[in-house]
Amino acid sequence: MTVLVFLDPDYPDGRIADASQPQLKVTDTGVTRGDGIFETMLAVSGTPRKLRAHLARLATSAEAMELDVPASDVWERAISTALTVTDDDGDLVVKLVATRGEEGAGATAWVLVSPVPGGLRGRRLAVLLLDRGYDSTVGQRAPWLLMGAKTLSYAVNMAALRHARSHGADDVIFTSSDGKVLEGPTSTVLIARVRDGVKHLITPQLESGILPGTSQGALFTAARSAGWELGYGPLVPADLFASDGVWLISSVRLLAEVESIDGKPVTVSPELTAELGALVDSVS
Amino acid sequence: MTVLVFLDPDYPDGRIADASQPQLKVTDTGVTRGDGIFETMLAVSGTPRKLRAHLARLATSAEAMELDVPASDVWERAISTALTVTDDDGDLVVKLVATRGEEGAGATAWVLVSPVPGGLRGRRLAVLLLDRGYDSTVGQRAPWLLMGAKTLSYAVNMAALRHARSHGADDVIFTSSDGKVLEGPTSTVLIARVRDGVKHLITPQLESGILPGTSQGALFTAARSAGWELGYGPLVPADLFASDGVWLISSVRLLAEVESIDGKPVTVSPELTAELGALVDSVS
Repeated sequence: MTVLVFLDPDYPDGRIADASQPQLKVTDTGVTRGDGIFETMLAVSGTPRKLRAHLARLATSAEAMELDVPASDVWERAISTALTVTDDDGDLVVKLVATRGEEGAGATAWVLVSPVPGGLRGRRLAVLLLDRGYDSTVGQRAPWLLMGAKTLSYAVNMAALRHARSHGADDVIFTSSDGKVLEGPTSTVLIARVRDGVKHLITPQLESGILPGTSQGALFTAARSAGWELGYGPLVPADLFASDGVWLISSVRLLAEVESIDGKPVTVSPELTAELGALVDSVS
Repeated sequence: MTVLVFLDPDYPDGRIADASQPQLKVTDTGVTRGDGIFETMLAVSGTPRKLRAHLARLATSAEAMELDVPASDVWERAISTALTVTDDDGDLVVKLVATRGEEGAGATAWVLVSPVPGGLRGRRLAVLLLDRGYDSTVGQRAPWLLMGAKTLSYAVNMAALRHARSHGADDVIFTSSDGKVLEGPTSTVLIARVRDGVKHLITPQLESGILPGTSQGALFTAARSAGWELGYGPLVPADLFASDGVWLISSVRLLAEVESIDGKPVTVSPELTAELGALVDSVS
């Protein structure tokens, strides 16, 4: 069952609405301009994972967009309402959205809880490297490009995924125009290197204009405790091929192992995937 | 009065709806992913200007997005319905929108007719040059970046305008990472050069990944008939300062003269502005 709860000053715990019915005006700048932000979380047994990290990133996105959104406690109450109302005790997707709303009015904000789509997990991925068009330093000199914000303007991310699928691949790893590995359209890139018995877990550096991954962040914390060395890029495509494992990690699909890049196989490791997968599962 | 007409197979002339009421589901990919396209036209005395050019560009955008949208005649009938219903005989904004709709369902498409916002026209503009982050050749090698498509994912365009306004400017001219003049967030750039009594009207070349401007295209046709020489970039910022006039042109604001760029004055020409403005007004 899909549950929709709007954040509404008149309803401290959120206003429950019918997601199967129209709820947004066509003049909402969320739809006319993709002018808004979002977060997608996983809820397990009624509890959202990494709630603090998602709310913190939502606040960062809002700041980058100069968007006035409800405070974290208001989101938390609406999330709690939505998870209480749902009659589904499986894993759930919890989506938070805030748009700039009508011209001149305040933000439109809601929580949507829905089942995890089937067939999402457990498959190895064929991935294409696609140029994101930006160099890896542009985010720092051009804040109007909103590089660190998770905005609703995802048309390019969706087009990249369509391009991959029409070329027989499952997903995408974006590269910068100066040849650095960036991120997936909806995920963070991870590689493992095992050197002299020491396991290294490495992700591209945030300064390259990628989104800070909440799942990557939580996994890094868990992996450090488990004895892994951590590293932060820069990575280039050759690093992916020279690694002992490549994964895309995200909040709902979780850890997904990459088996090929641009049609060329990369090292797969059932052992490392199982180990990292267990660490991902341990995150709360 | 604002009039909303949905394109709906059950209503050959379009289905009139209430724009002041919610009409879209929160799961429409137009809002969740900015996954859709749009056009904005001006209607004068009940007739949309440059209708063919806008419908052609909508079709081009749809193709770039692999989006299945209604045929031109369906749009035309819905536009006609909307313009017939409105009781406003002033200039009107006619907006066409098509989103990818619900996951797995077809496109959501509508026409919205509303009054032209006040205070939009007749002001000289202070403009900032802002880096768009892309080099001027990326559009040709990376179609997934949707450079020639007018998508709903306009968060960066809006952020650039906010950045300009917070720095005391009115509008933006984007430049490429390799230093070429591109376009405004919602307009096309024009410059004039008068050499030996010959008037040249120049715009950045389309191959730089900009949107083909319908107003620029129509003005070029009219200007050629009036004896102007036409030119297509590449242009660099120095060309703006060395010109005999700089304008941003778009379908609703029409021709807007630029008076300064990054705080430095550029040549303004009331005569050329009046001449080009009359040519713009002559477009149908």
